[in-house]
Amino acid sequence: MRMYDLIAKKRDGGEMTREELQFMIDGYVAGRIPDYQMSAWMMAVYLRGMTAPEVAILTDVMAHSGDMVDLSAIEGIKVDKHSTGGVGDKTTLVITPVVAACGVKIAKMSGRGLGHTGGTIDKMESVPGTRTALGQEEFFRQVNQIGISVIGQSGELAVADKKMYALRDVTATVGCIPLIASSIMSKKLAAGSDAILLDVTTGTGAFMKTVEDSIQLARMMVDIGARNGRRMAALITDMDTPLGRNIGNSLEVIESMEVLKGRGEADLTEVCLQLAANMLVLADKGSLSECRAMAKAVIEDGSAFEVCKQMFACQGGDVRVLEDYSLFAQPEASFELLAEQDGYIWANDTEKIGSASVLLGAGRMTKEDAIDPAAGIVLHKKTGDAVKQGESIATFYGKPDTFAAAEAMYRSGLTYSDKKPPEVPLVYARVTADGVERF
Amino acid sequence: MRMYDLIAKKRDGGEMTREELQFMIDGYVAGRIPDYQMSAWMMAVYLRGMTAPEVAILTDVMAHSGDMVDLSAIEGIKVDKHSTGGVGDKTTLVITPVVAACGVKIAKMSGRGLGHTGGTIDKMESVPGTRTALGQEEFFRQVNQIGISVIGQSGELAVADKKMYALRDVTATVGCIPLIASSIMSKKLAAGSDAILLDVTTGTGAFMKTVEDSIQLARMMVDIGARNGRRMAALITDMDTPLGRNIGNSLEVIESMEVLKGRGEADLTEVCLQLAANMLVLADKGSLSECRAMAKAVIEDGSAFEVCKQMFACQGGDVRVLEDYSLFAQPEASFELLAEQDGYIWANDTEKIGSASVLLGAGRMTKEDAIDPAAGIVLHKKTGDAVKQGESIATFYGKPDTFAAAEAMYRSGLTYSDKKPPEVPLVYARVTADGVERF
Repeated sequence: MRMYDLIAKKRDGGEMTREELQFMIDGYVAGRIPDYQMSAWMMAVYLRGMTAPEVAILTDVMAHSGDMVDLSAIEGIKVDKHSTGGVGDKTTLVITPVVAACGVKIAKMSGRGLGHTGGTIDKMESVPGTRTALGQEEFFRQVNQIGISVIGQSGELAVADKKMYALRDVTATVGCIPLIASSIMSKKLAAGSDAILLDVTTGTGAFMKTVEDSIQLARMMVDIGARNGRRMAALITDMDTPLGRNIGNSLEVIESMEVLKGRGEADLTEVCLQLAANMLVLADKGSLSECRAMAKAVIEDGSAFEVCKQMFACQGGDVRVLEDYSLFAQPEASFELLAEQDGYIWANDTEKIGSASVLLGAGRMTKEDAIDPAAGIVLHKKTGDAVKQGESIATFYGKPDTFAAAEAMYRSGLTYSDKKPPEVPLVYARVTADGVERF
Repeated sequence: MRMYDLIAKKRDGGEMTREELQFMIDGYVAGRIPDYQMSAWMMAVYLRGMTAPEVAILTDVMAHSGDMVDLSAIEGIKVDKHSTGGVGDKTTLVITPVVAACGVKIAKMSGRGLGHTGGTIDKMESVPGTRTALGQEEFFRQVNQIGISVIGQSGELAVADKKMYALRDVTATVGCIPLIASSIMSKKLAAGSDAILLDVTTGTGAFMKTVEDSIQLARMMVDIGARNGRRMAALITDMDTPLGRNIGNSLEVIESMEVLKGRGEADLTEVCLQLAANMLVLADKGSLSECRAMAKAVIEDGSAFEVCKQMFACQGGDVRVLEDYSLFAQPEASFELLAEQDGYIWANDTEKIGSASVLLGAGRMTKEDAIDPAAGIVLHKKTGDAVKQGESIATFYGKPDTFAAAEAMYRSGLTYSDKKPPEVPLVYARVTADGVERF
């Protein structure tokens, strides 16, 4: 077999076999197939596409290019959740304790933030003392004992994906749905859960800018999971506006705890309930409405918050901060971003808000950057809100020398109007193996 | 400017500007743009195409990536000729002396053979003593004195093309008409002639397997030349059967001299007359029929052969061999390939014949291989000829230990039938800036 012929086959719109994909991925990981052949193949995939069975096989082969996590030592159905990324997207911190409080085991590996989007592990580490790098034995023991553990990715999952992603990033083949779907799902398959709920974000803060593209991506990922024996569902959620009001690490932990305490922002609470209910459905806990009621109940009776505290405590975190937020590390300074005119906020580019937050120190542009856990943004006025000139739209937290650049970035995505913009739904659609349900 | 954006633009079907193509070619030649980006761009070109103005600019930029030959020291219109390659394709050896004998200056650079096709320079060097590496001054002086010189490529023409071609060869982007056209024409533009006649071969021995693909390639090359200020014409010629009967270096020189002496094979003579007539038209020597008559006349009166002898003599060749072929280096042995059955030769794959000839020692598989000038094949029966079982179809010349492999290769492309196959034209079409004339 020669990589040349595999490139030619895909170039001509052919469907690759398992043997061919295995040969290609093995050879690429081992360095026998050079980048210039892989990039030609990926461009051919970008322009020619892949069939559903083909992309499912590719994903499985990519998953097996690294460690495959074995969660069989944990009893019951293990449900994972993945978001395609967003700004102020703190749902994992809310829904994993909710689902665990309903009796479903959560053994979850999460990522760190990069670019304009944040990561769950960085947020968790803003709780002083929290360890996110547990060994496998401790990880399993905690899940079996208290029903939940969220840790950073350990081992080398989907090694091929890391190498392919880096190449896509420099060859203009990132925005290709089969390659996005196989990249995400290869890591999810390797992470070992029986069921996976996908949160496919849509809008200015998300990778997918349109609902239709998001649905297409969700359908492909649901199909990949199903073909590889996983229970799958996906929600298409809005990311034209950040979820909730807080962006930044300790700021998002605080806002998540408010939801778990039953005092959360309405938009964030609603999305979390829908996500949690879908995870419970995947774990055979009942119908969607029954599961939603269960999720609501464990918030109202405080048991979800208790599970969250237990998790942080088990992982070494100082849980007093979850009760008394003043115990979090405090920001050096704050800055009020004031409205320049009266009117409605017509648009407020979410990616720009995320980038402003990175400039304040809440995120990283390269993997080596350090993070200020107290830095970030609290939004007082969001898209659709009425403002008066001079009123505060947002408060920035961080080092004072970062405020000017962050302000310029934030304002570059901010427009006013004398008309109120149309409202958009929080959740656009639900995708399962049975089809697409639009809301 | 970033290569990433240029890949994305072509991926999305955009048309690149001169500035963008210049940035890309400069960066690639200098090593600032890596192979993996160039291969992604070339695959995007393969699948998205290029517009006529775009490919003309690319070709010009590629031409200027190396030396640009300045032929202005030679008076008059300089006409070049290029064949897209074939087996037994010895027309250059015939038509350049014919055209020069009609008073048109020939300052031509030719190539060596690689793979199943031969090269004019290797053929010329089978005439003992012939030098094909002249300095520029000697080259110009010879052209001004006797009207003709054919030499090997000197200097570094179209440096970008060399690097791009090597990459296309391993990334399945060879068979892409804009990339083929720009590759060929960049070297022709750099070679400095005012007018260029293209011989676009078609069939089993050629790169283009169908007449329509050949016409498309010819149209694009004619357009590239015209947009860059060159007079252009192209003939689409048949390469489903080798031209003439001889394949191999001294064998092809002998057959060419027979044409120049007025005793050539009918097919070869006819194609040479058409090619020469078209070159003369490009040099403003008259109408196509007038030019054909001129070409015929210089063969009949012996002046074309005299010019050919003069050229070899000027370049150090022992011209006695052109009169007495027994003075050529002689092959070690010969072998008769016999017909296995009665019937018509239905097909005789030209690429296989070329490969058999390479196995005999007449060509090279890699640039480092040595050539046996006396090795090759003389065809006695060609496609459409009737044969009797045991009759000789071809004679092989070379080292005896090469005969078995060459025979197996030759026979693998040979089929018989009791029906005579349909005749195919020698020349399918003529392409100029005015359009396509099909015969």
